[in-house]
Amino acid sequence: MSLKLAIEKYITENRRKVNLSIGENLPSANDRVSRAMRYAVLNGGKRLRPVLFIAVFESLGGRIDSGILTIASAIEFIHTFSLIQDDLPALDNDDYRRGKPAAHKVFGEDIAILASDSLLNAAYKILLEEDAIAAGLKVKIASELMRTVKILISGQEGDLALTPRKPAGLLRLKEIYSGKTAALIAACAKIAGILRAVKAGELRRLNSFGMKLGLSYQILDDILNVTAENKAFKGRKFSDQRKGKITYVSLIGLRKSQEIVENLMRQAKRELAKIDKIDKGTLFLLADFILQRRY
Amino acid sequence: MSLKLAIEKYITENRRKVNLSIGENLPSANDRVSRAMRYAVLNGGKRLRPVLFIAVFESLGGRIDSGILTIASAIEFIHTFSLIQDDLPALDNDDYRRGKPAAHKVFGEDIAILASDSLLNAAYKILLEEDAIAAGLKVKIASELMRTVKILISGQEGDLALTPRKPAGLLRLKEIYSGKTAALIAACAKIAGILRAVKAGELRRLNSFGMKLGLSYQILDDILNVTAENKAFKGRKFSDQRKGKITYVSLIGLRKSQEIVENLMRQAKRELAKIDKIDKGTLFLLADFILQRRY
Repeated sequence: MSLKLAIEKYITENRRKVNLSIGENLPSANDRVSRAMRYAVLNGGKRLRPVLFIAVFESLGGRIDSGILTIASAIEFIHTFSLIQDDLPALDNDDYRRGKPAAHKVFGEDIAILASDSLLNAAYKILLEEDAIAAGLKVKIASELMRTVKILISGQEGDLALTPRKPAGLLRLKEIYSGKTAALIAACAKIAGILRAVKAGELRRLNSFGMKLGLSYQILDDILNVTAENKAFKGRKFSDQRKGKITYVSLIGLRKSQEIVENLMRQAKRELAKIDKIDKGTLFLLADFILQRRY
Repeated sequence: MSLKLAIEKYITENRRKVNLSIGENLPSANDRVSRAMRYAVLNGGKRLRPVLFIAVFESLGGRIDSGILTIASAIEFIHTFSLIQDDLPALDNDDYRRGKPAAHKVFGEDIAILASDSLLNAAYKILLEEDAIAAGLKVKIASELMRTVKILISGQEGDLALTPRKPAGLLRLKEIYSGKTAALIAACAKIAGILRAVKAGELRRLNSFGMKLGLSYQILDDILNVTAENKAFKGRKFSDQRKGKITYVSLIGLRKSQEIVENLMRQAKRELAKIDKIDKGTLFLLADFILQRRY
């Protein structure tokens, strides 16, 4: 089996496990809020963050169990909470998400807001109610997620201010991308490290790996928004571009943005390489796969 | 000192302690979201829920420390989260809260939504980061709050459907009030019991006490909305009534609603009376005080 096939198989298998756990942790569709939660979470997500979390955890010698899958579900709930809110008329005002009508278009703004709250609340609830994880560890992981959500909301606030009338410099844009995208991706790597009880220095490297990977992922979004103009990239939506928001490409151009992505990826891999007892093989492949945006 | 003065003093003193802890736990006003959080929380709340929590805790022999005050702050953060959202245009669409412009009128809908999320997130964060409480106990209390927020959101969803075109019966209305108001008040009593390690049966009585107190509190709101029509009750806002929502009074009339409030209060006190080693004095006075709506 080729390496490409191997990593695709790895992703597919873990995505399936994550989806099973997500299904068990979602409420049944008894009321509108629960139906909106299910709609938003089950709306074709790639499960990038949970799969990355699992990959880092396994690379550090961990074995998947129900506790790990509950954490993976919690991470995806938090991601979906932020997506529902991002699409609201009061925020980015997007009618579509993953090619389907956004939650607020299907269920109304009121129910969409309550569903997003419920997903944030449920993320923490399923984690704290998980018996397979010791109380002290649950508190550490939940605290890490809460710290991340705080940063995520700051990033969202910064992003709201990114209009053509209020331009931002590259430094500010990097800060916003770090908050709204990279922080949760970094938390996936860091929480895997917390679970494997790695040393503080290595925890910092895992965090840094995730920040750099997440930042490149978001800059790549800016690049694809432009290159897709010619290629009519299938199935993607480029709302940020259409609204004339500041992006890496609008600030420094396509080529420099691509150079930054490549630099960040090199740095991200270098962070991993410095960690003791980590199996870098899968993670390198996964990172490349993510950055090729096949994922 | 008269009993009335004594209970007023008790309330004022504990409210002061709670406000100090709230001030320490709120973020500084560095960005719009933090300013909106501060505005909404510091906007003249009575701190009914935190003070009730402390009163039950002390009645069971507990002594206030920083951990207790952090829990009190977390409870008020959750209450404020629900108030900000309740006022949003997509929900109850109220321009005023406590006689002042609602958060979304001052900061915009987008920032108000992010501030409400941040308060929910911060409630759990300050609790899990509190060193004065053991990890196992933190997990128990946070889980209880998360269970309560889930119920609160269900109550909010039910309340949204309460329009003249979609009338509800008394049973459904009781269910909605129990969710949107009584559940968090009951959680205050129950969490105090969890902290004092009372037996399961007594925990159920504390919960039942809070549910009955909370339900009477909300029905009294319906009553005051009507009686105030004649008396021009000062400083209150009666948005639910104005929008023609179903209430206890609209369903069964003023006198029957008043009877239900009195009955519920008798039952609430009876629950307390059956609990071993509880100092009922303060709690009876506090409950009466709350129900006189001086509070």
